[in-house]
Amino acid sequence: MNTLQKQIHTLTTAAKEAGYILAAEPAEQINHALEAMAKALDTHRKEIQDENKKDLAAGKKRGLSAAMIDRLTLSDTVIDSMISGVETIKNLPTPIGQRYEEKNLENGLRLSKMKVPIGVVGIIYESRPNVTVDAAAICLKSNNAVILRGGSEAFYSNTILARIFSDVLRDTGLPEKAVQLIDTTDRQAVNYLLKESSTVDLIIPRGGEKLIETVVEHSHIPVIKHYKGVCHLYIAPSASPETARAIAINGKTQRPGVCNALETILIHRDVPEAVKKDIISALIQEGVCIRGDAAIQTLSDDVEPAGEEDWDREYLDLIVTMGEVSSTDAAIAHINRHGSGHTEAIVTADTDEMAAFQLRVDASSVMVNASTRFADGGEYGMGCEIGISTDKLHARGPMGVDDLTTYKWLVEGEGQVRE
Amino acid sequence: MNTLQKQIHTLTTAAKEAGYILAAEPAEQINHALEAMAKALDTHRKEIQDENKKDLAAGKKRGLSAAMIDRLTLSDTVIDSMISGVETIKNLPTPIGQRYEEKNLENGLRLSKMKVPIGVVGIIYESRPNVTVDAAAICLKSNNAVILRGGSEAFYSNTILARIFSDVLRDTGLPEKAVQLIDTTDRQAVNYLLKESSTVDLIIPRGGEKLIETVVEHSHIPVIKHYKGVCHLYIAPSASPETARAIAINGKTQRPGVCNALETILIHRDVPEAVKKDIISALIQEGVCIRGDAAIQTLSDDVEPAGEEDWDREYLDLIVTMGEVSSTDAAIAHINRHGSGHTEAIVTADTDEMAAFQLRVDASSVMVNASTRFADGGEYGMGCEIGISTDKLHARGPMGVDDLTTYKWLVEGEGQVRE
Repeated sequence: MNTLQKQIHTLTTAAKEAGYILAAEPAEQINHALEAMAKALDTHRKEIQDENKKDLAAGKKRGLSAAMIDRLTLSDTVIDSMISGVETIKNLPTPIGQRYEEKNLENGLRLSKMKVPIGVVGIIYESRPNVTVDAAAICLKSNNAVILRGGSEAFYSNTILARIFSDVLRDTGLPEKAVQLIDTTDRQAVNYLLKESSTVDLIIPRGGEKLIETVVEHSHIPVIKHYKGVCHLYIAPSASPETARAIAINGKTQRPGVCNALETILIHRDVPEAVKKDIISALIQEGVCIRGDAAIQTLSDDVEPAGEEDWDREYLDLIVTMGEVSSTDAAIAHINRHGSGHTEAIVTADTDEMAAFQLRVDASSVMVNASTRFADGGEYGMGCEIGISTDKLHARGPMGVDDLTTYKWLVEGEGQVRE
Repeated sequence: MNTLQKQIHTLTTAAKEAGYILAAEPAEQINHALEAMAKALDTHRKEIQDENKKDLAAGKKRGLSAAMIDRLTLSDTVIDSMISGVETIKNLPTPIGQRYEEKNLENGLRLSKMKVPIGVVGIIYESRPNVTVDAAAICLKSNNAVILRGGSEAFYSNTILARIFSDVLRDTGLPEKAVQLIDTTDRQAVNYLLKESSTVDLIIPRGGEKLIETVVEHSHIPVIKHYKGVCHLYIAPSASPETARAIAINGKTQRPGVCNALETILIHRDVPEAVKKDIISALIQEGVCIRGDAAIQTLSDDVEPAGEEDWDREYLDLIVTMGEVSSTDAAIAHINRHGSGHTEAIVTADTDEMAAFQLRVDASSVMVNASTRFADGGEYGMGCEIGISTDKLHARGPMGVDDLTTYKWLVEGEGQVRE
């Protein structure tokens, strides 16, 4: 083991110990710490913003785009929303300790499941520094220890936020090592973390394709991927023209840079030409660049030809791929082939088509006559989310506090033995 | 891609296609196929046993132990129990299609979760050929396609059983590729399978330490490990002597070769010496070899000294490691350090101790005054099990039909878009 590897092992071992302590802490204690964290963010506002300025200065020097600088900035508004986020999480019900599926077996044994924390959760993210606080708060609410690995561009901001969280834990009688940040920018640190399968129980990577691939390739720890959203809208022949247009526009343009935005629109060939043209011109009017197949190209001179790879693309921009299909079956097959398992939508008035689409499309969220943009923990009433899982195991779609739990089987008897 | 790699890719792609078809099949169709499979096992009894004889002959030539040969043998009794197993699985409730957590959002959207199959499940096993039928039947009942990779010593038996299953699927109008066996003994095939993350959704390895480690190291697909059971019994000061003795004997000797058998007994130092001696002599009388720490060694001349590595050992034999602890906290800490997350038991009359043990021991099953041997899908009333997960994500402990499902979020609206 080299120095860095030892450092990571020490950190994950401390997390595991902290996790065991945290697992037995009552909800009041956890909520007390979350309340103190919300206050500490306010008290330390200036200190946080001073550290944030170091990141901003370095980012400008490195030539980060205005959008990137904007995401990185911890303005008063952003800090306020971090504070209210922590308070929201505090006020959610505590899942840990709940017993369910209780039953009495014939031999007199009492069987139940009890919700328990997963243990130690490692979160690897590239995005805004507020993820540091959101993720740590969600993990704490579910009695999990967390190891945070943020992007290097937010190094100083993440470091101060994690330090404040640790201080709050210590001051409220909880193990300070329950929230730890990997505070080196050495990329090798992540590879060592991913091998710590005896101390870390789950890795959640949130970020671009490359980050996710690297994590999946190297991890010996179970991973729940928060991968891209290649979200489709399928417009069936019976679709209401107004609904189809509204959902297409909303999905593509309301916030194009997020994972539940539309990337591809499939339209049944029997949809009236006037309706097709109306949707196309509405998209163009909103500044959307359309890449279409041969059929779509015949409908407008402004449609560019779609390349083979465009059908798998997550643009995160005002660009959409658009194509005609000859049946609902063909639309479903296309989506299952090109989708990323995130969110898929149909607009139709036909209940059989709705049911087939719901049954056969393989994605975390399936929308009927609603925008893909609703695929979100807040919209689903979860109060918060740690992200949107594009995996199928354990948690699918928006992941909240409950999804960071697992269970134990409890068996209670009076000396029963097996015959 | 070399020939074998192409072959595996073709097989997994066919499984994915079959999985999509299977996902939409109604329960009656699935149950009809399971019924036909139970009949086919009976009809093809002679053919199965002829192929099994080839494995037995090869095994004897290779010098397999009598116990191994016994496990490999598809006697009439074993075939009968395979048939009744398939019938039991057929008669279980069908989870797929169930809607739950239904709610109406303020914006009028209707939100629910729907249980759906995972998709394609790969099972890598070393054990008896009846796993081929059990695993395929459980996967079919949950509308999953399955890829089977059995041990080379059961090659002919596994091949005929998988072929009969595929034939039944075809004859009952289901996709025959929903059950496929990797019919090469080339070890490289597994490595190629583990890279097929775009077609295979889950890998379940059942087997020894080496198999599990190889799978975890190489898999790009989510894995649910069915790992070893280093199960502990902790005897507290208030334990009923009779209960403690009965559970120690049952856990260790009733069937020592299975994963929920006891491997370590921890006993509180305040348990009366006479009680300790009684348990030790009862174990010895049952033919158990005891490896003890210094305190246990003073209690009987027949106790051998325990080595450092014995505290982590899964003997699967009439051997037990035994030690004294000074507190329940120390017992819990020892178990969390040396256990494998399988099944842990306490014998006590103290309700605070019970609660602390249940809350703080990190294992899939926690027993209070009951034998570890009860950790089993059949005992828990699941009707069947595909194995016992020692992982924490998705499914923990005995895994049944329900654990081979995931969910989709369904959102239904009337044209809602996000503001």
